[in-house]
Amino acid sequence: MINIKRSLGAKTIIYPTPVLIVGTYDKSGKPNVMTAAWAGICCSVPPCIGVSLRKATYTYGNIIDRNAFTVNVPSEDQVKNADYFGIYSGRDVDKLSHARFTSIKSELVDAPYVKECPVVLECRLLSAVEIGLHTQFIGEIMDVKAEENVLDEDGLPMIDKVKPIIFAPERRDYYGIGEFLGKAFAIGRKED
Amino acid sequence: MINIKRSLGAKTIIYPTPVLIVGTYDKSGKPNVMTAAWAGICCSVPPCIGVSLRKATYTYGNIIDRNAFTVNVPSEDQVKNADYFGIYSGRDVDKLSHARFTSIKSELVDAPYVKECPVVLECRLLSAVEIGLHTQFIGEIMDVKAEENVLDEDGLPMIDKVKPIIFAPERRDYYGIGEFLGKAFAIGRKED
Repeated sequence: MINIKRSLGAKTIIYPTPVLIVGTYDKSGKPNVMTAAWAGICCSVPPCIGVSLRKATYTYGNIIDRNAFTVNVPSEDQVKNADYFGIYSGRDVDKLSHARFTSIKSELVDAPYVKECPVVLECRLLSAVEIGLHTQFIGEIMDVKAEENVLDEDGLPMIDKVKPIIFAPERRDYYGIGEFLGKAFAIGRKED
Repeated sequence: MINIKRSLGAKTIIYPTPVLIVGTYDKSGKPNVMTAAWAGICCSVPPCIGVSLRKATYTYGNIIDRNAFTVNVPSEDQVKNADYFGIYSGRDVDKLSHARFTSIKSELVDAPYVKECPVVLECRLLSAVEIGLHTQFIGEIMDVKAEENVLDEDGLPMIDKVKPIIFAPERRDYYGIGEFLGKAFAIGRKED
């Protein structure tokens, strides 16, 4: 077997990678947001999401202090703000005000979510896993909230209405969502 | 502030969610693949990916035994096979043969990768994090390998050539990649 694949080295490459906005309160109660891509659902029961952050981020200390965070899914028309939230630190600038985004205090966890994002998750910190440069915060999803205009007749979000942003590591490209390809747990069923 | 968002309950919803094929060897040395969506990069240094699996899966035992797995990124024209790999168990069927996919033995870790997938990651098991129904396997990425025809002039994969599959939880929809939206760490920079 000849392997025609080229070796790229030990890199953090996977597709798709999400673009998510993490919402927290700092010690003074000021809401802050930062963009994270090293994240994904990590358990169904309890429903959990893992978000990995460097200790150097302002959000890191906020999560440790408050034991809570939100995960906000930006829409593709918010891509410039999502990028902005990933470049600057909440230590230096009030990013939400600068982007003219609005924070709403969660009634479930001690963190703010972003009004303008179509889908938001309210998470309580379950554990912090030290891996290396990044610490993975595992948050139990206490509730998902969504804008009415992205929901189908069953009250479930439609990804083509949410229009999330997809990040391509290394080349650092943002992409939008494309065409419907099929139904999961259905199109791969074998008749024989 | 009136919150017009609708509460959907505690659900595993986030966008985008990946569709990844996990490759392992079983005790007898038979290569197996399964599709996983609860996954994401979780550390830059060392480069790591987290993949969450239920203990009931065949792959779970294989990873525990071999301390290794691969993560293979399928292309959208492989969506039916990717779905198939997530429906059936390697206990009951030789999924790779059935799908006419080819396994290649990694020279770096004790696991097989999928020749037909445009991008593959070879991972050694770093740790297993018990969360609940799912166990998160954190794998150190030892190498990324890619097909020549998805690489740019700098040798980096282009996501619009890889054409990964995006999964929308709850509605269980598969989608493809869409339009280029902009450059990360660039389009959000403030001039003022």
